[in-house]
Amino acid sequence: MLHDQVLLTLPAWIADEIGPDAVYPDDLAKMTLAVRLSARNVREGTGGPFGAALFTEAGRLLGVGVNRVLAQTCSLAHAEMMAFATAQQNLRQFRLNQTGERIVLASSSQPCAMCYGASFWAGIDAVLIGARADDVQSLAGFDEGPLPADWLGEWQKRGIAVRRDILREDACAVLQTYGESGHVY
Amino acid sequence: MLHDQVLLTLPAWIADEIGPDAVYPDDLAKMTLAVRLSARNVREGTGGPFGAALFTEAGRLLGVGVNRVLAQTCSLAHAEMMAFATAQQNLRQFRLNQTGERIVLASSSQPCAMCYGASFWAGIDAVLIGARADDVQSLAGFDEGPLPADWLGEWQKRGIAVRRDILREDACAVLQTYGESGHVY
Repeated sequence: MLHDQVLLTLPAWIADEIGPDAVYPDDLAKMTLAVRLSARNVREGTGGPFGAALFTEAGRLLGVGVNRVLAQTCSLAHAEMMAFATAQQNLRQFRLNQTGERIVLASSSQPCAMCYGASFWAGIDAVLIGARADDVQSLAGFDEGPLPADWLGEWQKRGIAVRRDILREDACAVLQTYGESGHVY
Repeated sequence: MLHDQVLLTLPAWIADEIGPDAVYPDDLAKMTLAVRLSARNVREGTGGPFGAALFTEAGRLLGVGVNRVLAQTCSLAHAEMMAFATAQQNLRQFRLNQTGERIVLASSSQPCAMCYGASFWAGIDAVLIGARADDVQSLAGFDEGPLPADWLGEWQKRGIAVRRDILREDACAVLQTYGESGHVY
């Protein structure tokens, strides 16, 4: 019989990284969490050097994600995808901004082609990006896949605001640590 | 405490649609299964009008998927994504063609921007498509999201062969039934 389900899980240490009542009021606080998750994922050996988190604009944490591709034997399990899926479980909504609250994604690196496409269906209003695609490729060796030529404009056209290069150096430091480790998670 | 896992499941009827030893030797047989899955998903009320399946080129079935977005409260749960994830569980490989066997995806409709991006990481060598993106939009009202201008060429550039319009009319009939039903799964 073929498998007819898949369970995607975050590592056990996630609970330590998110205080029970922590609030993440601004872009910097939101990205700090995403980068911290990426760094811990590498340090713990639980996945690739990527972290993501979803918040209300005011700063309530809705869900987090780290790369779990190898751990879960699943190419879907990128950080942003894990954050979308767990936040949707938390809110019990497949479109996070369905209730009208503005939703923000913070990702330690620019989303790949899959996570970029997924961002249009998850119900988000803003994207914060740390490292650029070039950084991901040059420092950690990951391909980001084919995007529309005007990928930033496509987000904006659909009402999704974008801010880039937030804590880019910190995000790059994590990519570099991973790249130099020679590990492949 | 925030959810830190998500379980994605296929409907119970899936087992009836796939014989235990069925083989799907050619493109038509492969697409017939994908379209049959899409039709049954609508008929059973278990999700949107989309079906997908993964095979070895010779026709061994590796995994199937149907749209489960509403049923699972998860915007990731498109047919192709469910097929990628369950096939990867079956093969215990996050990149399906890692062992060198050629892998074929059959999808009842053209993959959306998310599933398109995901196809580059899942480890496939060929894509078979039934209905076109325009059909999906006009008959069932679904947006397919932004793709690279030369989305077909980007697949081919990375060694992924594409064949379109296989059983397009049958796939469109399912989209139309769904569109006319007024249901939103």
